[in-house]
Amino acid sequence: MHKDKKTAQASQQSIDRIFTVPEAPDSSLGRIEQAISQNLNRFLQEHIAATERPLTEIEKDFNTASVPENPTFVSEHTEFLLDKLVAQSVHTSSPRFIGHMTSALPYFLMPLSKIMIGLNQNTVKIETSKAFTPLERQVLGMLHNLVYQQDDAFYDRWMHSANHSLGSFCSGGTVANITALWVARNHLLRPQGTFRGVAQEGIYRAMKHYGYEGIAVLVSDRGHYSVKKSADILGIGRESLVSVATDENNRIDIAALEKTITELKAQNIKPFAIVGIAGTTETGSIDPLDKLADIAEREGCHFHVDAAWGGASLMSDSQRLKMAGIERADSVTIDAHKQLYVPMGAGMVLFKDPALVSSIEHHAEYILRKGSKDLGSHTLEGSRSGMAMLVFSCLKIIGRQGYQLLIDQSVAKAQRFAKMINTHPEFELISEPELCILTYRYVPERVKQALSLAKPDEIDVLTSLLNDLTISIQKRQRESGHSFVSRTRLTPAAWDGRTTTVFRVVLANPLTTETILEEVLAEQTELALQSKGAYPALMEKAEQVLLRAQVKRP
Amino acid sequence: MHKDKKTAQASQQSIDRIFTVPEAPDSSLGRIEQAISQNLNRFLQEHIAATERPLTEIEKDFNTASVPENPTFVSEHTEFLLDKLVAQSVHTSSPRFIGHMTSALPYFLMPLSKIMIGLNQNTVKIETSKAFTPLERQVLGMLHNLVYQQDDAFYDRWMHSANHSLGSFCSGGTVANITALWVARNHLLRPQGTFRGVAQEGIYRAMKHYGYEGIAVLVSDRGHYSVKKSADILGIGRESLVSVATDENNRIDIAALEKTITELKAQNIKPFAIVGIAGTTETGSIDPLDKLADIAEREGCHFHVDAAWGGASLMSDSQRLKMAGIERADSVTIDAHKQLYVPMGAGMVLFKDPALVSSIEHHAEYILRKGSKDLGSHTLEGSRSGMAMLVFSCLKIIGRQGYQLLIDQSVAKAQRFAKMINTHPEFELISEPELCILTYRYVPERVKQALSLAKPDEIDVLTSLLNDLTISIQKRQRESGHSFVSRTRLTPAAWDGRTTTVFRVVLANPLTTETILEEVLAEQTELALQSKGAYPALMEKAEQVLLRAQVKRP
Repeated sequence: MHKDKKTAQASQQSIDRIFTVPEAPDSSLGRIEQAISQNLNRFLQEHIAATERPLTEIEKDFNTASVPENPTFVSEHTEFLLDKLVAQSVHTSSPRFIGHMTSALPYFLMPLSKIMIGLNQNTVKIETSKAFTPLERQVLGMLHNLVYQQDDAFYDRWMHSANHSLGSFCSGGTVANITALWVARNHLLRPQGTFRGVAQEGIYRAMKHYGYEGIAVLVSDRGHYSVKKSADILGIGRESLVSVATDENNRIDIAALEKTITELKAQNIKPFAIVGIAGTTETGSIDPLDKLADIAEREGCHFHVDAAWGGASLMSDSQRLKMAGIERADSVTIDAHKQLYVPMGAGMVLFKDPALVSSIEHHAEYILRKGSKDLGSHTLEGSRSGMAMLVFSCLKIIGRQGYQLLIDQSVAKAQRFAKMINTHPEFELISEPELCILTYRYVPERVKQALSLAKPDEIDVLTSLLNDLTISIQKRQRESGHSFVSRTRLTPAAWDGRTTTVFRVVLANPLTTETILEEVLAEQTELALQSKGAYPALMEKAEQVLLRAQVKRP
Repeated sequence: MHKDKKTAQASQQSIDRIFTVPEAPDSSLGRIEQAISQNLNRFLQEHIAATERPLTEIEKDFNTASVPENPTFVSEHTEFLLDKLVAQSVHTSSPRFIGHMTSALPYFLMPLSKIMIGLNQNTVKIETSKAFTPLERQVLGMLHNLVYQQDDAFYDRWMHSANHSLGSFCSGGTVANITALWVARNHLLRPQGTFRGVAQEGIYRAMKHYGYEGIAVLVSDRGHYSVKKSADILGIGRESLVSVATDENNRIDIAALEKTITELKAQNIKPFAIVGIAGTTETGSIDPLDKLADIAEREGCHFHVDAAWGGASLMSDSQRLKMAGIERADSVTIDAHKQLYVPMGAGMVLFKDPALVSSIEHHAEYILRKGSKDLGSHTLEGSRSGMAMLVFSCLKIIGRQGYQLLIDQSVAKAQRFAKMINTHPEFELISEPELCILTYRYVPERVKQALSLAKPDEIDVLTSLLNDLTISIQKRQRESGHSFVSRTRLTPAAWDGRTTTVFRVVLANPLTTETILEEVLAEQTELALQSKGAYPALMEKAEQVLLRAQVKRP
């Protein structure tokens, strides 16, 4: 690094300025800000490029691996961001972006976010967050109440109690799931006699003390990948995450679960946590939570519900019925940045028993002193922002009934889309929407006919060719930039568990209309016909099967 | 939960509105936003109440543990936030708030944050982040370059490579440290022969396979509490975090470290990571990194440097010299939300070897597919926001030389403050500022005199009384709301390792003047004299000691 006296002096002035004097209001940054404030959606529509540039092209704009030596003017940098970053970002709030869980945001969150960022609180400790500490505890209380519905006396007693916690606020569902299983692990392998507990002594000595050969987490095939990641991080190993088969509705198979538990116990492996899913990532399915609660209770193991995505549906009286039993969970993960319509970075894990977090409690000399109400003594993360303020604002402004409407509308829309697919001659619904996620694929009529007459090995080949076609359609649809659905691989019972690539749709954006959904199917049909490799190969194989089955060409 | 048809209909309208039509510009939210844009610091000064209300009082405003049934008007909610939250938050960007690492923010970050939040990207995967993926990789590359200074060919090759990663972006230093030790643990206990590695099989089987009785992380007494938390989470146990004594400058004592390593090995405990600190949280001290690198190399263990706070000082050519050896670390933690002046929630861990993260790599069906460039396959967290954009913007706009000025000014200011304390008859500097953190305490002249003549047991009593006084001053200073310093407990060599409570000051805010520092000392002196319990008790003991030592009253 070299020094340049003249430039450095110029920097001195700019440094003094950036912490004090704002730019003139007619600057490019000011104009952008105003445009965003007035109409975020229009700003994004105007600035995000429709057609996707290849990633390798975009990378060329982000190729310099050194901190620039000299300062850049704010306006110059803003132009760069507009051209190279904003233009090449993903329009997640577009009503045609129905492939993932990131959706539109309420407009009032933009200015509120600015207040939050301007205040720059650090919720790890009261000294840097003051009112944000009781605020965050209240948000955790509200979500706890949504799940567990305890009485006022319960919340009066525990919500602001220094040595208790109704949950941990965190950056997202993954940290929430890790935290829940961390608590469960530490609770199972707790201090006993001369053994000072797994938190102090670690897993090796814990296993020797308790005499287990292993400990296991059980979750269905549809479990989120973060559960496996948790098993790795927590030192129990990914193989301790035992996958249980699902039924034809992508819900955990209770008989298979019982069998797995028996087998594990025979090997002296202790099942220490059962994870139920309330809204699987891929299909939106809900496990039979009440039955899982029974089994967890009988086995004396921690019952965690991963409701990262589905938890918000508890806001709706009718959807709530689908999650009966969630109130029996020891811990529940809910992401506010999914169906609570809060910006990215707001997850929570809630604990039924406010004393449960004591198993992960920690202190330090300069903060988190014993008896303090510092939030950081019960969280995996240390320094954290005041995101709870945005969750709080959405809960207050939208209200329970507002969310109920949003949730019910999304589910109803998914059901109408399912019907649209079911009645379409060239599409096949793979998973019914239990909430507002569904999966399907494009299957031309002749292929449907061939599949109905095909022998198992012929179905294998047709499935594989259909998978190629689905991938090809999904990729080109994303690249075209008109609309976006995601894809995943399932093993539907209807196809004897054959690995099947499907389109996956999440209908959480209130601005997505039925017309848009019709257009999505039309675009996919067109993309299928344009497919140069996958489509002809599939059709040829279908005709072969039909010929073999002595069906005449149409 | 009950239903109310009429209110529900009203909600339908408000729901439709919140995702589309913005409020009129003269709304309260609009006015606040404008005020923040024009002058954040003045807005905060005007709205944050100076005097602290007791937390129990503030809690009363955040006491309802149910999601409100009906929606609230945005303007009404905004007034509530202003009155109850903003007014009772901490003015972290005040030049008089010099107790923690949260400081003022450059003004341009407010509008840029709004763009970031409006775009609502999810950097876990390219499908929801597109250009934000190469952007984040570039930011990691820039910081990697700052630490490791590899040549262009290195960054051309690895920065955007799908199966490699120069680091992981995360919510903060704690997750960064956990990630580093997770990588180190998985690398040590990697697959070998029939053993499939700790990530797969867990710690219990790993230890049996490798035949260790334990594995240990070594860090000095001044280590951040997150290292102990990491040891708990990672399943090796807090006791595996072995604290090593520090020298009189709060740096790790190399002889003590060598002795500890020998002792551990004698017990068949494998030291698998040595953590060096570049800027301790409490005193800002820097361990002798080069010597630690030598030892780590010799012992074949992972060398991690926790530079969460101090890492930004690498921007300065002169401060960089104090961190010689950091470029030999296998991993380095840097928080952008500390001395890089980015809002809360931006941490990073950098890896010298771009292939090292393979030990924590994970995949899923619907994202993070093998060979994809999805960032989520190498991070502890799942969904994450586009915070890297704010780091990128600060690096570009401020530039290396801009940061150098900021850092050098902070260090110079800390040195002047240290001199001010050293020459003040009634203060005692406890730790010299190596960077811009220092610690000190208030010691009246007669007490200084008494301490110089006291016997060990008398020093014990005086120390304890001084500790009470320091706590009392610090608390009342915070409550008065004029200024804020934090406090911690150290074991200074000058006082034979007696536990000593000290004021802790972090001088990172460019707007803090020497006049403010003089006022802080004046306020502390005044608060000492006003102390009803601690001050008289201390003075009485001091006079007893002086009497015993036959020193006359003045």
